[in-house]
Amino acid sequence: EIVEAVGAQLGTGPLAGRHVIVTSGPTHEPIDPVRYLANRSSGAQGTALAQALVRLGARVTFVTGPARAARPVGCTVVEVETAIQMQDAVTAALPADAAIFAAAVADWRMQAETGSKIKKQAGGAPPSLDLTENPDILKGIAGLESGRPQLVVGFAAETDDVVAHATAKRARKGCDWIVANDVRPETGIMGGTDNAVTLITEDGAEDWPLMSKRDVARRLADRIAKALG
Amino acid sequence: EIVEAVGAQLGTGPLAGRHVIVTSGPTHEPIDPVRYLANRSSGAQGTALAQALVRLGARVTFVTGPARAARPVGCTVVEVETAIQMQDAVTAALPADAAIFAAAVADWRMQAETGSKIKKQAGGAPPSLDLTENPDILKGIAGLESGRPQLVVGFAAETDDVVAHATAKRARKGCDWIVANDVRPETGIMGGTDNAVTLITEDGAEDWPLMSKRDVARRLADRIAKALG
Repeated sequence: EIVEAVGAQLGTGPLAGRHVIVTSGPTHEPIDPVRYLANRSSGAQGTALAQALVRLGARVTFVTGPARAARPVGCTVVEVETAIQMQDAVTAALPADAAIFAAAVADWRMQAETGSKIKKQAGGAPPSLDLTENPDILKGIAGLESGRPQLVVGFAAETDDVVAHATAKRARKGCDWIVANDVRPETGIMGGTDNAVTLITEDGAEDWPLMSKRDVARRLADRIAKALG
Repeated sequence: EIVEAVGAQLGTGPLAGRHVIVTSGPTHEPIDPVRYLANRSSGAQGTALAQALVRLGARVTFVTGPARAARPVGCTVVEVETAIQMQDAVTAALPADAAIFAAAVADWRMQAETGSKIKKQAGGAPPSLDLTENPDILKGIAGLESGRPQLVVGFAAETDDVVAHATAKRARKGCDWIVANDVRPETGIMGGTDNAVTLITEDGAEDWPLMSKRDVARRLADRIAKALG
């Protein structure tokens, strides 16, 4: 890993001189001072991808939510908690040649976070959690009029109709590629070490065989290097 | 730690021959296959307490939610995720001489967990999260007609009026003691290494000075040993 970092500093490899932003991990959206909304993203795939990009010589800004995975080496690491903080960090990291959105950003946050812990009322009804939509970071960056990264890649965690949902997501977000995976609990992908992805590009859907997240990362990094030419 | 475990097996110490159940950590309540409700409990205080009880010779059943803290040594460890699983594990561990409920159990869970990931609808309203109350494990055990542990201790994480809220909680739950702490973010207690607790007993409120969670655990374990005689 030290060798990788030095390689990047020396500007060797097919991505030398390129800046890539990678987001990773879950976001946590506070409900009150002790409770929050979360998701099961471990950050493993995003971390492996950042590491693979460093290996190819890229300068990587790694924007991560509170993930279990150890942080990648040789990147600029920006730690955030919420979707809004992640959006701010991505925007601050521009310009970039590519932006890869591997984080599992919460779709919703609380309309208003309460400063005091919500108390359980004896005999009372449970509180209603009034949600509001989080900013769509992928769509925002993909739709930039000026300063759009040359390559914008989203991830899609699906539990059914993976290709159809992911193809629709690519069109809706205006991004170049979608890396889709099937996160039904029985696949063991979310939180696991292996991944079976489908890469959606303008040419259609490409099923990759089940392989380790590290191998998915290397293959994807190679594709990114080719796309950036 | 090996010495502690052996000490417990040899039946030495003031709690030799006693069985204590300790719950610890957060619970996670699933929303759908990828999202869940969580809280910021690290499990540090419950883990330290279990370890201190082992040191005094107790046989400890440690029922823990998905906590960051390393598991205590020399205990029977039962890993759970949800409040209902925690209740089942505690019930299965009875009979016990004492039960210490240090876990931050979620007050609410989803009325119905969906088997598919909830999709964001373009232009649609955010989903409403319909909650229902979780079982009250502390109250259930404290109110047992037969087989109630001799000493039942609850924890209270409060953000305001700590003594008033915790004293009311002691009466409402029917437990013997409440260990109350102030979890306002500015105290740094939730997730931190120190703790400032107020012990609520039938004799009133006793403020303990700020000390490490390990020292809180030792002092509390000593008190438990005295209470069990």
